[in-house]
Amino acid sequence: MKAEEFRRHGHDLIDWIADYLENAEVYPVLSRSQPGEIRDQLPQHPPEDGESMDLILQDFREKILPGITHWNHPRFFAYFPANNSGPSILGELLSAGLGVNAMLWQTSPAATELEETVMQWLGELIDLPPGFHGVIQDTASTATLCALICARERVTSHSINKWGADGLAGTGSLRIYTSSEAHSSVLKGAKIAGFGSENVVMVETDKNLAMDPECLDRRIEMDLAGGLVPCCISATVGTTSSTAVDPLVPIGEIAKRHGLWLHVDAALAGSAAIVPEHRWIFDGIEAADSLVFNPHKWLLTNFDCSAYFVRDPEHLQQTMAINPEYLKTKQDNRVNNFRDWGIPLGRRFRALKLWFVLRNYGAARLREMITEHIGLARDFGRWVDESQSWELLAPVPLNTVCFRWNPGGLDEDELESNNKVLLDRVNADGTTYLTHTKLRETYAVRVAIGQTNTREKHVVQAWEKLNEVAAIING
Amino acid sequence: MKAEEFRRHGHDLIDWIADYLENAEVYPVLSRSQPGEIRDQLPQHPPEDGESMDLILQDFREKILPGITHWNHPRFFAYFPANNSGPSILGELLSAGLGVNAMLWQTSPAATELEETVMQWLGELIDLPPGFHGVIQDTASTATLCALICARERVTSHSINKWGADGLAGTGSLRIYTSSEAHSSVLKGAKIAGFGSENVVMVETDKNLAMDPECLDRRIEMDLAGGLVPCCISATVGTTSSTAVDPLVPIGEIAKRHGLWLHVDAALAGSAAIVPEHRWIFDGIEAADSLVFNPHKWLLTNFDCSAYFVRDPEHLQQTMAINPEYLKTKQDNRVNNFRDWGIPLGRRFRALKLWFVLRNYGAARLREMITEHIGLARDFGRWVDESQSWELLAPVPLNTVCFRWNPGGLDEDELESNNKVLLDRVNADGTTYLTHTKLRETYAVRVAIGQTNTREKHVVQAWEKLNEVAAIING
Repeated sequence: MKAEEFRRHGHDLIDWIADYLENAEVYPVLSRSQPGEIRDQLPQHPPEDGESMDLILQDFREKILPGITHWNHPRFFAYFPANNSGPSILGELLSAGLGVNAMLWQTSPAATELEETVMQWLGELIDLPPGFHGVIQDTASTATLCALICARERVTSHSINKWGADGLAGTGSLRIYTSSEAHSSVLKGAKIAGFGSENVVMVETDKNLAMDPECLDRRIEMDLAGGLVPCCISATVGTTSSTAVDPLVPIGEIAKRHGLWLHVDAALAGSAAIVPEHRWIFDGIEAADSLVFNPHKWLLTNFDCSAYFVRDPEHLQQTMAINPEYLKTKQDNRVNNFRDWGIPLGRRFRALKLWFVLRNYGAARLREMITEHIGLARDFGRWVDESQSWELLAPVPLNTVCFRWNPGGLDEDELESNNKVLLDRVNADGTTYLTHTKLRETYAVRVAIGQTNTREKHVVQAWEKLNEVAAIING
Repeated sequence: MKAEEFRRHGHDLIDWIADYLENAEVYPVLSRSQPGEIRDQLPQHPPEDGESMDLILQDFREKILPGITHWNHPRFFAYFPANNSGPSILGELLSAGLGVNAMLWQTSPAATELEETVMQWLGELIDLPPGFHGVIQDTASTATLCALICARERVTSHSINKWGADGLAGTGSLRIYTSSEAHSSVLKGAKIAGFGSENVVMVETDKNLAMDPECLDRRIEMDLAGGLVPCCISATVGTTSSTAVDPLVPIGEIAKRHGLWLHVDAALAGSAAIVPEHRWIFDGIEAADSLVFNPHKWLLTNFDCSAYFVRDPEHLQQTMAINPEYLKTKQDNRVNNFRDWGIPLGRRFRALKLWFVLRNYGAARLREMITEHIGLARDFGRWVDESQSWELLAPVPLNTVCFRWNPGGLDEDELESNNKVLLDRVNADGTTYLTHTKLRETYAVRVAIGQTNTREKHVVQAWEKLNEVAAIING
C-alpha cells in the first residue's frame, strides 16, 4: 500500500472512529445479526487480485458493522466492560505501526523498559506494597494459568516441569481452593495445567457471596487428612457475578500457615483500588504471591491489557524459561526478557497504550471515573431495593448490581422464566445490553457499569427500560 | 479525550506512521539503547493530573523511539520477520476503535463469522485438504501448547483434564517427539501442560537438519518397550534455525500406525505454501491433527495473528470448555464460541486486519512477495557458497540462510569467536540486524529475509557489510 493511500484511508478511519465513539449510541448495542447472516454475505474464496480499500471499508460498514455488538455503547451493561478511550486507541495504532515483537529486551529495549515503568506506576496507583514485579499479559485467564503453574512447580520443587506426572510420584493430588463464585478461568487453568478439574475445591461462600475462610481452612484440613496435597488458593476480589470480595486478611493467614500459593484474581475490581475509598478490597494483599487485574476492563485501556504482579519472578521465570541458542543475547543477565514471564514467546508492545492512558488522563481523572461508576451502581441498587416490584439479590460493593423482577406471588421457577423473558426483551430492543448470572441457584439479571461514556442518564434509561418491559410482560 | 483532539492526534499519528514506514531505513535497525537507559528517562511515578498528547507524543519521539528495534526496517534480517503493512495497521486501528471482545459469538457475531471466513480463505490459500477448522491464536507457542494439551487429553480419554496426575495412574509417562531442531515452544508447552521436559524426546535429524523418520520410529518403539506412553509428534515445517522441513509423509504414517497426535509447527514457513512451487512443504499434511502458521510473520499482518487449524474441534472444545452461567447465550448450540478454542477467555477482533490484508493485496500479490523473498535468500546463499571466505552451513529451502565467515586456517573455537565478533560489529553498525544460532554444535550467522520492504539492494548491502566487517577483522 502506497504511503499516500495509507494516509488517505488512515485519516478517514480516524474520523470514522472519532464519530463512532461520539455516536455509538445510535447503534443497537447488542447486534441483531442471526447466526450465519454475516458469513453468508462474505465470499467463500479469497480474492486473487487486490481490491481497493474503499471497497473493503464500504463492505466493513455495510456487512460487518451490523454484526458488531457495541462495547463502546454507553448502555453496554453486560458482562464486565472493556472500556476504551482515545489515547488508548492511538497507542494501539502506534504499536501496530511500529510492529515490534517485544519478546526480548533487545528486540525493542523501550518496549520492555516502558512496560517495567507503567507496571510500577500501576502498582503505585493501587497502593501495592513493595516487593511485587509487574508484567503485562493478554488476559486474566492467562495470568491465572501462570499463577497455577507456578504454584504447581513451587510445591513440587519444579519436578512436574521436569518429570511430568512422575514428579508427583507418591505425593497425592495437588489441590486448588477457590470460591464457588470464582471465575471459570480457575477451573480452565486447572484443566490446562494438569491439576484436573476434580482437584479444584469450590469453597463455600458467606451471605455476601465471598469466600468463607473457615470453610477454606476446613477443606484444607480435610484434604491433608485424606493424603491430598494443598497447593494454591485463588481468591477473588470482585467476583464475576456480583463483585463479591473474598477477605484477603484471613485467607492470607491460612495460605501462610499451610504454605500455599495465594493468587488474587481482581480482574475487574482491581482498578477500583486506585480510589482510596475502595482500596479496602486489597486489605491483606501483602500476603499474595500473585495478583492480576485488567486495565482493559475498567481503566480506559482497550482490550487486551492485563496487569500481572508476582512476588517472586524467579518462580515465574524458572517455570516458563526456555533458552535456545537463537534467542540468546549479550544482555540476558542484565535485563528482563519478558518472554520468560508468560506463555507466548512473541509479545505485542502493549505498554505504549497504557502509558498514553495513564499520562493523558492522570491519576485524578481515572479516580473520578471509578468513583462515578460506583456511585451510579449504588444509585441503581437503591432504586431496585426501594421498588416493590424488584428485588436486590446481592450487595453492591462496586459497579455491579444483581437483581430480579419480583412483583410478588410467583414461585422460583416462574421468577426465573419471567426474568429470562424480561432480559431477552430488553436486549432485543437494542437500546440496552444486560446479561444474567446465577447466584447459588437464583437467576439474576446483572447491570455492570463501567463503559467510558456511561453517564447517569444512561443508567436511568436502562432502569426505565426494565420497568417498561416489565409492565408489558405483566400485562 | 474530546473527538477533535482524537482527530488531530490521530491524523498526526497516521502521517507519522506513513513517513515512518517509508523511511524506517534512516533509523539504526537494532536499537543502540543500553540497559536501563530508557527507564532512567521516565518518571518513577504516574502523573496526578493529565498531560497533553502533544507532550506525550514528543516524549515518544525523544525518549521511546531511540529504544525501538525497527522490525519495519528493510535490513531487519534477525530471527524471523514480523512483517507489516498499511492495510494491517488500519485493520488493527479499526479493531482498537471497535474495542470488541470476541469471546462469544454474541459479543460480536461479525468477529466470529469473519474469523471463520478468513481462516477458510487461509486454508484454501495453502491448499489445506478439507476437514480442518481454523481459529486465530496470539502466537504459535500458544497454539502448540493447545495441541499438546489436546494430545494429552485424547490419549487419556480426557482423564487428566478431570483427575490430573491421577488420570495417569499406572499408565506411565506421556511422551512427546519432536526434532532436535524444533522450536523451544514444544519444550515450554510440555512444561506448562505437565508432560515434563524430560518427556520431550528430541529425535535426531538428517543431513538437512530435518527429523529422521527412522529415528522417530525407533524412539517410539523404545519407549513402548520401556512402558512409556507415546502421545504426540510435533513436526516442524521450517525450523527456526534453518527452515529445515520435517518430512510429513513418513512422519504421518508413523503417527497413524502408533495412534499419536500429529501437530505441525509451520510458524514461519506455512505462508510459503501459498505459492504452488513451495506447497511441497505440506506434502502429507492430511495426516495432521493440528497445524499452526503465523500470518504475523510472513503474510503482511502485523503481530499478533497466528492461524491454528485442527482436524477435530471437538477435542479442542472439550479440553478448553468452561460453561459458567454468566457466559451462556441462547445461540450456544448453533454457533462457535471461540472462547472454547484456546486459552484466554477474552479475544481481540484479529480477523479484521487479516481480512484487510488478504483483500487489499489479493492472493497473487502475496505469492509474488513470498517468491521474491525466497529468491533473494537463494541469491544470498549462492553468494556465500561461491565465496572462498564464507561457508554455507545448511541448505536454503526457503527464506533463511545459515553461514559463517571461514577464511581458512581457523579451528572450530576460533571460527566461533571470530563469527561472534563479526556479528556484534555488523549489528553495532546499525545498518543491518542479523542474529545467530547453532546447528548441532556449529555457531552460525543467520539471515532471514521477509520484511515487507526488503528488496535486492538491501540484501546486497547486508552482504557487503558482512564482507566489509570481515575484512576489518582480518586486518
